[in-house]
Amino acid sequence: MSDSAGAEAPAAVVADFSLGDIAAELGGELIGDAAVRITRIEPLETAGSGAISFLSNPRYAAQLASTRAACVIVAESMRDAALARGAAIVVPDPYLYFARLTRWWAARTRRPAAPGVHPSAVVHPSASIADGVSVGPLAVIEQGVHLGAGVVVGPHCSIGEGTRIGEQTRLAARVSIAAGCTIGARCIVHSGVVIGADGFGFAPNQGRWEKIEQLGGVRIGDDVEIGANTCIDRGALGDTVIDDGVKLDNLIQVGHNVQIGKHTAMAGCVGIAGSARIGAHCTVGGAAGIAGHITIADHVHIGPMAIVSHSITKPGHYSGVFPIDDNAAWLKNAAAVRQLSAMRERLRALEKRLLEHGPHGSGPNDKNTTERDPA
Amino acid sequence: MSDSAGAEAPAAVVADFSLGDIAAELGGELIGDAAVRITRIEPLETAGSGAISFLSNPRYAAQLASTRAACVIVAESMRDAALARGAAIVVPDPYLYFARLTRWWAARTRRPAAPGVHPSAVVHPSASIADGVSVGPLAVIEQGVHLGAGVVVGPHCSIGEGTRIGEQTRLAARVSIAAGCTIGARCIVHSGVVIGADGFGFAPNQGRWEKIEQLGGVRIGDDVEIGANTCIDRGALGDTVIDDGVKLDNLIQVGHNVQIGKHTAMAGCVGIAGSARIGAHCTVGGAAGIAGHITIADHVHIGPMAIVSHSITKPGHYSGVFPIDDNAAWLKNAAAVRQLSAMRERLRALEKRLLEHGPHGSGPNDKNTTERDPA
Amino acid sequence: MSDSAGAEAPAAVVADFSLGDIAAELGGELIGDAAVRITRIEPLETAGSGAISFLSNPRYAAQLASTRAACVIVAESMRDAALARGAAIVVPDPYLYFARLTRWWAARTRRPAAPGVHPSAVVHPSASIADGVSVGPLAVIEQGVHLGAGVVVGPHCSIGEGTRIGEQTRLAARVSIAAGCTIGARCIVHSGVVIGADGFGFAPNQGRWEKIEQLGGVRIGDDVEIGANTCIDRGALGDTVIDDGVKLDNLIQVGHNVQIGKHTAMAGCVGIAGSARIGAHCTVGGAAGIAGHITIADHVHIGPMAIVSHSITKPGHYSGVFPIDDNAAWLKNAAAVRQLSAMRERLRALEKRLLEHGPHGSGPNDKNTTERDPA
Repeated sequence: MSDSAGAEAPAAVVADFSLGDIAAELGGELIGDAAVRITRIEPLETAGSGAISFLSNPRYAAQLASTRAACVIVAESMRDAALARGAAIVVPDPYLYFARLTRWWAARTRRPAAPGVHPSAVVHPSASIADGVSVGPLAVIEQGVHLGAGVVVGPHCSIGEGTRIGEQTRLAARVSIAAGCTIGARCIVHSGVVIGADGFGFAPNQGRWEKIEQLGGVRIGDDVEIGANTCIDRGALGDTVIDDGVKLDNLIQVGHNVQIGKHTAMAGCVGIAGSARIGAHCTVGGAAGIAGHITIADHVHIGPMAIVSHSITKPGHYSGVFPIDDNAAWLKNAAAVRQLSAMRERLRALEKRLLEHGPHGSGPNDKNTTERDPA
Repeated sequence: MSDSAGAEAPAAVVADFSLGDIAAELGGELIGDAAVRITRIEPLETAGSGAISFLSNPRYAAQLASTRAACVIVAESMRDAALARGAAIVVPDPYLYFARLTRWWAARTRRPAAPGVHPSAVVHPSASIADGVSVGPLAVIEQGVHLGAGVVVGPHCSIGEGTRIGEQTRLAARVSIAAGCTIGARCIVHSGVVIGADGFGFAPNQGRWEKIEQLGGVRIGDDVEIGANTCIDRGALGDTVIDDGVKLDNLIQVGHNVQIGKHTAMAGCVGIAGSARIGAHCTVGGAAGIAGHITIADHVHIGPMAIVSHSITKPGHYSGVFPIDDNAAWLKNAAAVRQLSAMRERLRALEKRLLEHGPHGSGPNDKNTTERDPA
Repeated sequence: MSDSAGAEAPAAVVADFSLGDIAAELGGELIGDAAVRITRIEPLETAGSGAISFLSNPRYAAQLASTRAACVIVAESMRDAALARGAAIVVPDPYLYFARLTRWWAARTRRPAAPGVHPSAVVHPSASIADGVSVGPLAVIEQGVHLGAGVVVGPHCSIGEGTRIGEQTRLAARVSIAAGCTIGARCIVHSGVVIGADGFGFAPNQGRWEKIEQLGGVRIGDDVEIGANTCIDRGALGDTVIDDGVKLDNLIQVGHNVQIGKHTAMAGCVGIAGSARIGAHCTVGGAAGIAGHITIADHVHIGPMAIVSHSITKPGHYSGVFPIDDNAAWLKNAAAVRQLSAMRERLRALEKRLLEHGPHGSGPNDKNTTERDPA
């Protein structure tokens, strides 16, 4: 890369904390010198001398001995191994502690959004804007919008007529929310998200499509996070509903009248067709597809790129994609897929033949010739 | 969800129509009290007492008896069942009637875009803007753009040099159309759409890629609808062409020089590689993929997530995806896929063996051992 | 399409060059009249009399005889065939020559971005803006941003605090780059791209998700092109890294801490989960998925819609998707997939039976009954 753009961007505030500060705020048993300065959070493998790191996955336990981190966050079971190399914070759940450390860290090193409405923003006089709201440059706030206390609206956001946004919710740059939607409190919505565009609804008429106006809205609960360029369509009649604590990654498509239950998380590029109902506490792998008008129970876990074409009523893990192979092998096997059904019939025929006229004249009870899972 | 954002957003205009108004405007045989007030359109199942509803899918006929809707739109075949419960509008195609009702409804309840150019928009003096055009706040209209009569350009839209947009076309907030494109009349383009970005074209040169400038444009016909965050690339030499009446859902990728025929509809997340030609009156399921430089005939229907790697010359329905399964079963079967070709050979060997030396010495005409669909 | 929008958009500058101009600038052996005027670049098949065209794929050699192009760019091997029909430019690599011709052409026919900062842009006084930079209407440039010489920032772009952009890089309309990212020189970033949104990171805690703040950034090398609506998330701790010369098509998802090696190219709709490391000089087909935390070697080529669930250590071509089929055939075969593992066991049982008690009492060495690739 060229020098012209390779330099590190300056952080808003330089991070420099003591181990004692961290443990005092976030808890855990600090073993080591509380005065040690910490300037970075880094993975075990690449941590430098001013870094705090963490070990949550036992797979990386071997990295513990060699890391140069100033302090390592570990579970009780790793206490001795951690102390053998230096300072440690012993906690019940190192990954959760790490998550909280990143939030504590970000709150102290990132410049907060300036409260107030930037003079370049276009705000309708009827909009209701609570205390401590920040509206960024060139944002557009339409008639009757309500922004709760502490809401942050980034540059180039547009919020349509009558939409309500709950307190402390943050919209990154360039988020579009159409009219008549509601977003809960403490949500995070990333750049490029489109909430409340029309669902895909048409009635066929003599070879043409006639538009069905999408008269519903979108209701999003509290503590929801929505990734960049994800789309959540408005309902056709009722609303599309995303419940509390849902986490959606980037480039996800949520069709009209979909319902997603509490604390369900979906990786990037998932597509959900209209009126699907997805339970609470589910996870959906990247680029999986969920058909319209089906129901998925709570605690269902869908693998990446799988297609869910029917309702799933039992919690559990579901997969639906074949592993990659080298081209030549793949082509041979893929060709055979087209004969799978025929192969099954041929196999059955052979079994029947051997059952009836087999080498030793064995009868119908012969174990080897019983079809084990008839279609 | 918290109270802070849970309240219903106010509609621009409160809906309150009489059954008589509706039937007078949209036709159909109204049976019942024309003075009854209608304030909502709702599905049969959840309809309240002020609602009009419809029955188009016989699967939901059972809901007819129990619905609380004030009036139900039904086909002739359901006339008696509908009247047994209350008011009805009898029409030849209830779903089409419903579509028209939603449009009539939206036209009467939504605040229309204010005509004129918002003072915060940046409009090049050479742009030609016809009567009744609405240009929203902070939109950018470049040199030589033409906007036809009644065009609506939402907030944060940008329209590149020389692009032409036909009459009554509506762009939602934040639509980007690059230079040198044409959009027809009465189109609807949703937020985040990018029309006319460069197609993906590079010539390899000693391990590097050299850009091929994309010198074509995009031509979009009349009555086209394009969903949120969908991308339609400009052509490399000629144009990318979307014909009249095409409906594209959200997050679709249309590569350079693709052609999509009249009244074809595609669900979300479809990807179409460069120079594919798709016929008229096709439908493409969600997240399906269409390879480059292939041709798809008119009236072809592609299932969700299928990959179309070769041209399709015959109308019909095509699928290409395996249904999901529980993890354990899937892993076993997926592993077997890698041996499919080998299994086929083994099966053939067994058949040959039995054919030649079978229990009863049966000859080549034995039906059971004939391979039914050789590769 | 209606007349209202069907007219050709005017080019910024009318193209009109002589063959001699082209050959003088771009090289090659011009055979024919150097004074001939060229006003278009067109494919062989549709070229008109003022067009220059090219033949790079031998598959299209038959079009050479019939094309009406004024001049054709050909390789040495096609010299005679080309001359038999008219003027030609003979070059070692016609496709590469064509690529360079398009760039030369675009540079002469497209209006360059006006240098300077548009008065409607919102630029923080601390931003450092080098010579010849163009900042378009309604762009937002935050505190401490650095724009290198000749950078073009389109309308509605937003560039977050401390981000650095290398010289000659061009951002189309509406590109969002968050704080603390670096973009190299001579990059092209298309509309709707989001660089530096939060990666998808959460720690589970009693059925809820706790956010892991994404403290890393994004580093993008020189000569990178990024397609419309593609998302590149910032790293959780370290940076997400896109190396020099990488080309990404539209609607691609790049998760946090992904690394993509030099000169790798990816088609549209690819999804890459967090911390995947992709080598240099790879290609990835449209809508393929790459799992998190895996490594792909240099010079690996992944087919469209394949899922890469494990590391690939050997260069080569890899596939993972089944060809589409007509619905009826597909349904039969797809159902059989669920019995694949069982079919394999049944096949093995038949083989064993015949091996032990076969028609001719053949022993364990019998070739036909040996399982060729046991699981």
